[in-house]
Formats: sequence, C-alpha cells, structure tokens
Amino acid sequence: MTVSSHRLALVTEDNERYLALLNNLQLPELEVVDNLADATIVLAAPPQLVPSLDHASQLEWVQSTYAGVDALLNEALRKDYKLTNVKGMFGPLISEYVLGYAISHYRHFNLYHSQQRNQDWQPHPYQSLSGKLIVIFGTGAIGNSLANSVKALGLVPIGVNRTGIPPKQSAFEATYHVHEAKLALSKADIVVNTLPNTPETVGLFDKPLFEACHRVLFFNVGRGHAVDSGALLSALEAGNVEHAFLDVFIDEPISQECPYWHNPQVTVTPHIAAISLPEQVIEVFAENYQRWIDGYQLKFLIDFEKGY
Amino acid sequence: MTVSSHRLALVTEDNERYLALLNNLQLPELEVVDNLADATIVLAAPPQLVPSLDHASQLEWVQSTYAGVDALLNEALRKDYKLTNVKGMFGPLISEYVLGYAISHYRHFNLYHSQQRNQDWQPHPYQSLSGKLIVIFGTGAIGNSLANSVKALGLVPIGVNRTGIPPKQSAFEATYHVHEAKLALSKADIVVNTLPNTPETVGLFDKPLFEACHRVLFFNVGRGHAVDSGALLSALEAGNVEHAFLDVFIDEPISQECPYWHNPQVTVTPHIAAISLPEQVIEVFAENYQRWIDGYQLKFLIDFEKGY
Repeated sequence: MTVSSHRLALVTEDNERYLALLNNLQLPELEVVDNLADATIVLAAPPQLVPSLDHASQLEWVQSTYAGVDALLNEALRKDYKLTNVKGMFGPLISEYVLGYAISHYRHFNLYHSQQRNQDWQPHPYQSLSGKLIVIFGTGAIGNSLANSVKALGLVPIGVNRTGIPPKQSAFEATYHVHEAKLALSKADIVVNTLPNTPETVGLFDKPLFEACHRVLFFNVGRGHAVDSGALLSALEAGNVEHAFLDVFIDEPISQECPYWHNPQVTVTPHIAAISLPEQVIEVFAENYQRWIDGYQLKFLIDFEKGY
Repeated sequence: MTVSSHRLALVTEDNERYLALLNNLQLPELEVVDNLADATIVLAAPPQLVPSLDHASQLEWVQSTYAGVDALLNEALRKDYKLTNVKGMFGPLISEYVLGYAISHYRHFNLYHSQQRNQDWQPHPYQSLSGKLIVIFGTGAIGNSLANSVKALGLVPIGVNRTGIPPKQSAFEATYHVHEAKLALSKADIVVNTLPNTPETVGLFDKPLFEACHRVLFFNVGRGHAVDSGALLSALEAGNVEHAFLDVFIDEPISQECPYWHNPQVTVTPHIAAISLPEQVIEVFAENYQRWIDGYQLKFLIDFEKGY
C-alpha cells in the first residue's frame, strides 16, 4: 500500500456527492481518507468540523465549503493550518433572494395568494422597484454582485464598507464609510446586510442605525450577530423598518420561543439565501489543490486575525 | 368665452389624477372639456371609451392610457380618428412580475411562508435562475426589456415573433419565427407570452405548443385570448407545464366557476403585471400633444389594420 502525500477527509453535509465529484476529477496524488487523523487536507462545513478539529493531527489546510468561516475563528480553537473559503458563487443566489422578496413585498404576492384562495379578484396599487435606493452593507464579491443585479431593474445601489473606498469595478452609485452609514440609511428604501461575522460587525445594526431608517425593507443575509434583535423589533413597531427578511440568526435553528416566528412584519427563512452547490465548491477546491501541490498561494485564504 | 382649438376629454379610471397632472403642465391651446361631444382629443382607457365612442362627434385623436387597445379595434367600431397607445413604461413592471414569481417558485417562498406559520425550520434544496432558458413571445418593447432584465440574473432569453428577425438593439440570444416556436419551447424552462390580441395570436398557445414544453413555468402577461384554456389545463396535468402564472383572461374578472382559482399549479393575478402610472402616461401625452399641434406624426400610432 502506497501512502499518498496528500490525504483528504470530507466533513460536509453531503460527503457522498463530494466523493462522486472528486472521483470524476481524479486529482493527482490525492487520496480520500475516512479517518480525520490521517488527513492533511480537510474539505469541511465549518460548524461540522469544529468538534473534531483537534483530531486532525496532520492537518495542513482546510478548504471550507461555506463562505462563512466564523465557526473556525473562535478564540479557543487551533489556528495552525491554512484556511480557505469559497467566494464568487453566492452573489447571484443572494440577488435572487433579495430581489424575489422585495418584488414579492412591493407587489403584494402574499395578498394575491390569499385572495386567490377566496376567489377574490381585487387589484391593488403598487410601486415599482425602479428608482428605489438600496443600501448594501459590504462591498465585497456578494455586495458588488447584488449591486450589479439590482441596477438592471432600475434600483440605485449605495455601498457601505469600513473604508469608504469603492471596490474594483464597482457597481455602486456611491460608497459610504460605515461611520457615515446613517446618511445613506436616511434615504434608503431597502437595506441589505451582507457582512461577515467579525468583532466590528457584532451588533452593528443597533438602535441608532435603525432609527435613521424610514419604512425600509431590511434584509439580513450576512450573519445573525450583526443585528441587535431588540432594536430591530422596536424599529419594526415604530415603522423605521416596514418588513425584515431574516435568513441568518445568532443561534440556528432559532428557538420555538423566538418572537420572529409570529411577527407579521418578519419573514424567517432557514439560512437558504445562498447555499454552496457542491459542483461549484469542488471547482474552487480543484483549483486550490493545484496551487497547493504547485506551491502557489491558495485562493480565498482567510486571515485569522482579520476574520475574513 | 374663447373656444380653444384643441379640446380634451378624459375617460379614464382616474380622471382627477390626470386633471391635476394636466393642470401642472399647462399645455398650450388645450382646454379640458367635460362633454365628449365637444372633444377633439380624448385621453382614455379603451374599454371605458367603447360605449360612448360615437358621442365624440368632433373626435380627431384618442390617446390610450393602456398598451392594449384591442377594445377599440372591434370591427363594429368607427376608425375615423388617430389612435395612439403608450409604450416603453411596461417593460420594467412586467420584468418584476416575471422575475418575482419565477424566483418565488424556484426558491419555495410559499413553502417557507407556511413553514414559518408552523415554526418549522426546514431548508430545501433549490435551483438558481442562472442558466435557465426563457422563451419570450413578442420581441417588442416589453419583450426586449424583459430579455434585458433577465439577462442580468444569468437567464438566457430567446425571442419568438412573426418574422424571426431580431429587434433593434436586441437583448435576445436568438430569435425564432413563430412557426418554429416548438423548437425553442423544447429547451425552455420559462415561457412568457407578451403578445397583443390580434387575429394571429388568438389561441396561439394550443395543445401542440404546450406539448412541446417540458415542466416549464408559463406566464401569460399578454392577452387572455392567446391561450386555449383546455389545452393549458391538460398541460398542467400532464406536467408539460409545471406552474402557470396568469394575469390576463378572456373575460375579466374571471367567473367564480373558473377552474383556475383552485388549481394549485395556477397563480391568478387580477391584471396587475403592468399598470399605467398616470405620471408616465401624461408624459407620453404631453410629447404627443406637442407633435399634434406642430403637425408632426404622433408617437405610438396604431395601425387599425394590423392591430398594433
């Protein structure tokens, strides 16, 4: 028996699918192993890897199947390996989520759905999305892709980030520093959080930020920690936020007692705004694996200090 | 009392709003009159004008507030005046309707809505719209605008029209002659009818056309007459059509006995995919009125023979 120099363990929700895709690819010098202790490389969904991270005694590199790697950034966890995530594939899915729910809201889809059940033919006035101002927190790959998509429907995208500097090939009409976020929010119709979970983003959407809004649709497709739940619930009641579309939460699934479930101004979705499609993840892994064996820097390498 | 050379009567669903907008504009030599018999120009919703059309004994020009003017094309009606419609404003609204419902369908919005009521956290696999083929019948202003919008979300738009010739500044990947529609439909994921009501489009979507489809989403945002209802209901049952989104019908409102109401594969909306916003209609009217008094050809002039 030869021992390959690179040994990969799978710790995902769909190991079988990944195994089938890897078998098709026939990556050189790569052996898939069952035992985490034998692995030099792990392809993993971060929350699933956390409990057994210490068993991977030969670990050199973790390729995350998620964009969000915060589960692995916990202070108590080891950081003696390279960590990469996946990027670039989530923008279109996030755009569909935000546009789909925004259209559904402004154009009364739920109302027409219940009218149909009652055989009730009743048109209602509505507003087009065209011309509406959408403020997007995070001007990275996801935020910029979202800005691009919404522009095609006539929305005006404004970016908010921690530098105030527009991204390369920016689709944003303007880019604000996060310290000036209130200025942007005061004119917003739609607000979208796409930010990752970092110390700076915890509780970012607090009472003052929400109070700067006026009847906005608020989307959280970043991380649950970004939102102060109490402040959001007050903002919904006061009308600063007309409706909240929440896909991410501090604890998932949310508890049966969570007040979001039965609030008619809140739409809860079970972390599906963007999912990793194995076909796309494996493309990233294959490219990174080639870099790994060739000795080049990995793509989408996470800085454990910065958290992204 | 001076009698203005141009006298306008309003026959719309919202005369007050139009009057207010006209008062703001102060168009030269134009008087708004109450009595249709005094009017040389009428701004009208076609179905509302039909019953009193013969009273307008001095009629020279009708500016329709709708895109669809078929109510005025009836053989029994006079055609001794210029008829213009409105264009260019409906594309974005139709795009929102089609994209909103397509996303809502593929991404299970109704399912998540009922799960939320049951406090049920259950993600479901889904497909992105990206890469899906959308076949659009009608390559005019609405069809081309729709093609442009869906491209931004990665959909591939194919046009079908009666010439097979792509429109100017075409957003379509390819344009098929209506006689070759089945070829396009065999590869379609989404099918959209945007065609006006003309003798050629009556019953266009019949059994053979639907049988060429495979699990498509079918949208009718053109005219009800284009669809053979029996053929559509069979196609839904057979799975050629997965879901139909119907905004227009031969008789509106549809009767209480209509089988569409309670078919779970049918979404009924009360002719709201695109509505005429008075602010936009009045812009078209003002421009056309300037052409009228300057003696230039009117924009969006309808050919009574062709019906569009």
